[in-house]
Amino acid sequence: MQQCIELARQARGQTAPNPMVGSVIVKNGQILGKGFHPKAGQPHAEVFAIREAVQTGEDLSDATLYVNLEPCNHHGRTPPCSEAIVQAGIGHVVVGAIDTDPRVAGTGCDRLRAAGIKVTTGILEQQCLELNEGFFHQVKTNLPFGIFKYAMTLDGKIATTSGHSYWITGKEARQMVHDLRLGCEAIITGGNTVRLDNPHLTTHGMRDHCPLRVVVTKSCDLPEDANLWKITDTEKTLVITLPNVNLQLKQKLRDRQVEVLELGDISPQVIMQELGNRGCNTVLWECGGRLGAAAIKAQMVQKIYAFIAPKLIGGFSAPSPIDDLGLNLMTDAINLVRPQFQQIGTDFLITGYINT
Amino acid sequence: MQQCIELARQARGQTAPNPMVGSVIVKNGQILGKGFHPKAGQPHAEVFAIREAVQTGEDLSDATLYVNLEPCNHHGRTPPCSEAIVQAGIGHVVVGAIDTDPRVAGTGCDRLRAAGIKVTTGILEQQCLELNEGFFHQVKTNLPFGIFKYAMTLDGKIATTSGHSYWITGKEARQMVHDLRLGCEAIITGGNTVRLDNPHLTTHGMRDHCPLRVVVTKSCDLPEDANLWKITDTEKTLVITLPNVNLQLKQKLRDRQVEVLELGDISPQVIMQELGNRGCNTVLWECGGRLGAAAIKAQMVQKIYAFIAPKLIGGFSAPSPIDDLGLNLMTDAINLVRPQFQQIGTDFLITGYINT
Repeated sequence: MQQCIELARQARGQTAPNPMVGSVIVKNGQILGKGFHPKAGQPHAEVFAIREAVQTGEDLSDATLYVNLEPCNHHGRTPPCSEAIVQAGIGHVVVGAIDTDPRVAGTGCDRLRAAGIKVTTGILEQQCLELNEGFFHQVKTNLPFGIFKYAMTLDGKIATTSGHSYWITGKEARQMVHDLRLGCEAIITGGNTVRLDNPHLTTHGMRDHCPLRVVVTKSCDLPEDANLWKITDTEKTLVITLPNVNLQLKQKLRDRQVEVLELGDISPQVIMQELGNRGCNTVLWECGGRLGAAAIKAQMVQKIYAFIAPKLIGGFSAPSPIDDLGLNLMTDAINLVRPQFQQIGTDFLITGYINT
Repeated sequence: MQQCIELARQARGQTAPNPMVGSVIVKNGQILGKGFHPKAGQPHAEVFAIREAVQTGEDLSDATLYVNLEPCNHHGRTPPCSEAIVQAGIGHVVVGAIDTDPRVAGTGCDRLRAAGIKVTTGILEQQCLELNEGFFHQVKTNLPFGIFKYAMTLDGKIATTSGHSYWITGKEARQMVHDLRLGCEAIITGGNTVRLDNPHLTTHGMRDHCPLRVVVTKSCDLPEDANLWKITDTEKTLVITLPNVNLQLKQKLRDRQVEVLELGDISPQVIMQELGNRGCNTVLWECGGRLGAAAIKAQMVQKIYAFIAPKLIGGFSAPSPIDDLGLNLMTDAINLVRPQFQQIGTDFLITGYINT
């Protein structure tokens, strides 16, 4: 099952709106076939694994197929995997997590059992659920899973009093952020971050995939030249802004192949709906404290990545990562569940989930 | 040696201005004697261990004495341990760290070697140095070792916008703070903390020892009733303030057995000198961001204990742990060396040293 998860992860950030799935077929301790789902519209993981296994000419009735997510049982862009497994004559299927997609939701396993196949479920379930937490959240809420990421000093500052912030964390932590982006379909930032930091928000060549870069700005008062306006085959930018502001800049951005979307309401919820409609499962908020607080208040953030550098910068008015949440008592604080800690190079990372 | 350290730690916070020392005498894998230095003026660890070992009637020439700090070689309040070891006829002495006190500084080992005793040094040296980091710092600088401790949320806040701060961390972390206090001879706080939080700053009955509680206040504008004015046999309070302010309150405090010290200069350096003169090796700064920043700027803080609760409170003007350090560029930040991480109950603790 661990190998299924690793196979599935090879397509991180590229399967949405589908989940990441990996599959391995084993007989007598030998791997007969394996595969992963590379992209929506392409065959599922099980199909690749079955194709390989069938080519070996082995009898599959005493082979076991492992898969991190319940095989689908419906005709989508590809035929149902349950049928492919039945037809291949596989004897035993081991499933990590049940697919909560209402079109599957246990019926994949039911179909296999009805065909006389032994089915085992819930193996490494927690890891399998976490692998596709974006997909599961999207299925449940019809909105992408939101991650808010920030880097701060050990005294809670994201910049100096003068606004200087390069660099808080070390190389390894920044590398990990590139990897984190790789697992997302979109990154949201605010106009202020574009004006002050001029970020790239790319995966810095880690892989071909680069999430859609989204700038949320009321004023559309953005620099004419910014790193985000460099559009390539994989690196796209979407500016979400109000109508009737800065029409001249909007035209210039469009001329540079930047997509400009005008909405009457650019609240975090509306933005996430828009990105959900575009097939995003997981969206990264990489923004300042004001937009971050708005996203958290609107329940558009489900997970926190807090990078902490063991350094002190001080500063009475130096900003910290989250602005007003409207909470007056410490006892009203948002408690993170399942907090996890890692050391990343010279820095520390604490992650946790917002229990909503 | 590990056992020496554990023995030594039994007198945490009570040996100053002396170091914490533990000693074990071993022969053929059997412990013949052990001891620790309980308090300045009382016998040293080696003496207790030798007394026990001698009572066994064993020949000590093939016994080994372990001690975390080089035996002393001078007549202080007690005779030199080097002589006691020579007289006991011990064959081998294993030393953790060399005593940097100029009255010792290697001469203890020299004396033993001159008497034909085999001496091994530098065993678990790092742990032995860390055990007595307060003592070593005091020997080197004539000032106590300063620890700045704070508790903040994962978004870097020590209170809400309205000032509410009870409780940021959980029970286990607060318990650990009591233990941290146990290892200090004094705790410094500011007038604001007394006014807003009314702290006890005790070890909450963990042991008899309670560090001297020190309030630093320019105005001496303090509440007439505060938990810190409850003086007992072990719980004492010292108010350090300017002359010619709030004379009436000063008299009331003195009537309640609170010591009031008037100084023309109450800068962090002067306060630490005063506490050094009173025999403190290790002093804990448990104060707000303004006094904390002043102490760090004055190089009166050598170690940071940052407790981090995995919760978010937000708040644009909610305070963070350290006020202005006069640093404008992130690249000027104070980098902590030897950062360490621990999970404490539901919270996290990052410690580190300021490299001065």
